[in-house]
Amino acid sequence: MNGSTARGAGTLGIVGAGQLARMMAQAAIPLALDVRILATRADESAARIWPNVMLGSPDSLEALQELAAACDVLTFDHELIDPTHLAALESAGHRLRPSAAATAYARDKGYQRERFAALGLPVPPFRLVESLSDIAEFASVYGWSLAAKARRGGYDGRGVWRLGSPEAAEKLLAECRGAGVSLLVEPWLALDRELAVLVARRPGGEMRVYPVVETVQVEGICRIVRAPAPAPAGLAAAAARLAMQIATAIDATGILALELFQIGETLLINELALRPHNSGHYSIEGCVTSQFENHLRATLDLPLGSTRMVAPAAAMVNVLGVADGADPALVLADALAVESAHVHLYGKAAQPGRKLGHVTTLGQDADETLLRAQQAAAVFHRGTTNAGAATGGQEGADR
Amino acid sequence: MNGSTARGAGTLGIVGAGQLARMMAQAAIPLALDVRILATRADESAARIWPNVMLGSPDSLEALQELAAACDVLTFDHELIDPTHLAALESAGHRLRPSAAATAYARDKGYQRERFAALGLPVPPFRLVESLSDIAEFASVYGWSLAAKARRGGYDGRGVWRLGSPEAAEKLLAECRGAGVSLLVEPWLALDRELAVLVARRPGGEMRVYPVVETVQVEGICRIVRAPAPAPAGLAAAAARLAMQIATAIDATGILALELFQIGETLLINELALRPHNSGHYSIEGCVTSQFENHLRATLDLPLGSTRMVAPAAAMVNVLGVADGADPALVLADALAVESAHVHLYGKAAQPGRKLGHVTTLGQDADETLLRAQQAAAVFHRGTTNAGAATGGQEGADR
Repeated sequence: MNGSTARGAGTLGIVGAGQLARMMAQAAIPLALDVRILATRADESAARIWPNVMLGSPDSLEALQELAAACDVLTFDHELIDPTHLAALESAGHRLRPSAAATAYARDKGYQRERFAALGLPVPPFRLVESLSDIAEFASVYGWSLAAKARRGGYDGRGVWRLGSPEAAEKLLAECRGAGVSLLVEPWLALDRELAVLVARRPGGEMRVYPVVETVQVEGICRIVRAPAPAPAGLAAAAARLAMQIATAIDATGILALELFQIGETLLINELALRPHNSGHYSIEGCVTSQFENHLRATLDLPLGSTRMVAPAAAMVNVLGVADGADPALVLADALAVESAHVHLYGKAAQPGRKLGHVTTLGQDADETLLRAQQAAAVFHRGTTNAGAATGGQEGADR
Repeated sequence: MNGSTARGAGTLGIVGAGQLARMMAQAAIPLALDVRILATRADESAARIWPNVMLGSPDSLEALQELAAACDVLTFDHELIDPTHLAALESAGHRLRPSAAATAYARDKGYQRERFAALGLPVPPFRLVESLSDIAEFASVYGWSLAAKARRGGYDGRGVWRLGSPEAAEKLLAECRGAGVSLLVEPWLALDRELAVLVARRPGGEMRVYPVVETVQVEGICRIVRAPAPAPAGLAAAAARLAMQIATAIDATGILALELFQIGETLLINELALRPHNSGHYSIEGCVTSQFENHLRATLDLPLGSTRMVAPAAAMVNVLGVADGADPALVLADALAVESAHVHLYGKAAQPGRKLGHVTTLGQDADETLLRAQQAAAVFHRGTTNAGAATGGQEGADR
């Protein structure tokens, strides 16, 4: 609606400048796409490597409006944008991909659970929490081993609490009320495995689904991704169908990442993201078209690329900040000495537990491939207790 | 010697901002390398996508000194830098990779031929030209079908002339004298095939050689690269050995690209470049580690990555500017619709015959793979006579 389309595909504005925006920008280079990034600070991950950066807060409607005025399409590095701002941008005729309506499913877990349940999609049993009695009633059915989840703003293990007693529930509820956090509760599930599946979807509905992967979390933070997931073919196909069904139902544009619980032969929806996702970082080297390139293609309504893997197995291991706060760049040479390991550092300030990079490996054998990625990642984690690694990110947009 | 190494691997300065610098910068992102680019204009290919750009001419010693003062190592997008400037930088203690001494082999074909002949390396018969009698004497041995070549500054078919008579030789010599161009002559060879082989070499001598590829030129401009080359294994191995021998002999650092003539079972040295090279663009998707990443690793003295291909066959087709000067970005969508084609556009102003991008494909079968790359490249060449495509680049650094 606005801006110039002289560059063919149009100008894409990216709201937020974390590592997802950084890897989107990297993917924009070979296609010579016109990308403008809204960054809060000039030293953010994406702002460090891109010339066309506008400084301003994604929380500021004025900054968003200024970015939108210079772009044909806006997309997002994270889902924490104020929904009233998104609505205002759309009302003014700006194109948001994903749309404000689709984004709501990723921003508010309560809304997502209610809508998906109404659509007959496989969500875990849940209850939105208004008062302690909601939790008590839910526990009377499912027992006192519950997962309490913040409806909004949680990620990487933040915003999830295990509740084992009415006393713990009362304490948490008081704390959350004080902090303005709304909760829902679900049974604490005994999982066989966590799976993730990505779909790229264009405005007109064209879709490409990526191989279903296994994600391994430690205290809520993704540590390892194995592609393809060591799951039965039927289950993987069901996961792919579910992701495409959801993408269509909510009219998603760009990458949709669906995180699933596998319990026996059952799949339950865990989380949803409407952006490139940690579970798809392996696709940079592991698939014909990376999730970042397909996100750009989808948001600019260009034909999608093949999501086929280029090797039988891929593994990704996250590089988390070590307890002593050492910069991983200092041991880059040692990591590069690991044969055929693809090292990615995000140029972020090192903090304990923060996602600072990842390593991807490809191979013929899944176990050997994972081992190689772990060897390279271990270089970055070596020589410290790595005790900070499970404490979660301390800064925004660590997706 | 200078600058800060706080970022671990050190700061790399790239002299020149063409597409080679652009693809080096792209490769620097995942490694979070600290790269600074010297660009003549802000709209040059690499300057369009990189934030850390210094504006200044690679012909200016002052600009080079300013870049060097801010960097630990300098490397180059092209080999046209004044050798007295390179010597001055090295005298001042700056690290050039490749060194001034090694660069001389790529800059001056006469020097290269003489030195390589002295080393017993397989160069074609040649004679440096001082006067018409040099050409006449050479023709009396090899006949009047000669290739006259400018010793310096030629590329993409520029600086090469076919001489069929004494009259033509006299005319060319007069023109070259007027333009200050020094010549050498060689027999005009009947080739079976042109081959190219890349070696990455670290300062300490560690080397990795890439698969030998076939390059197909039309009027001196590389149009197609097929990897691996459809050459006998023994010949490919000999080409790889030769490239490593040369890299060691001249103490090359970074990527060395050796272009070879194949005549039967014989290999003759054609050209040499000490930088990433058009014949290695396929390595971005086609090899575990791209030539650009290995050039960065080598110049910063980091361990080199595997040069193994990730698929049995790869093909690269250059995108050249069409006769009507249309911007290839306008038909990007059509090119992306070709299945599994990796499109690269350089963000350069469209001019007839100018290298504006390339397409890479990977596959199981060499012919099918090449056909797919040609289909995608044809989108960019479609609807025009493409008559300008053989006239050579009109602007500097179109490598």
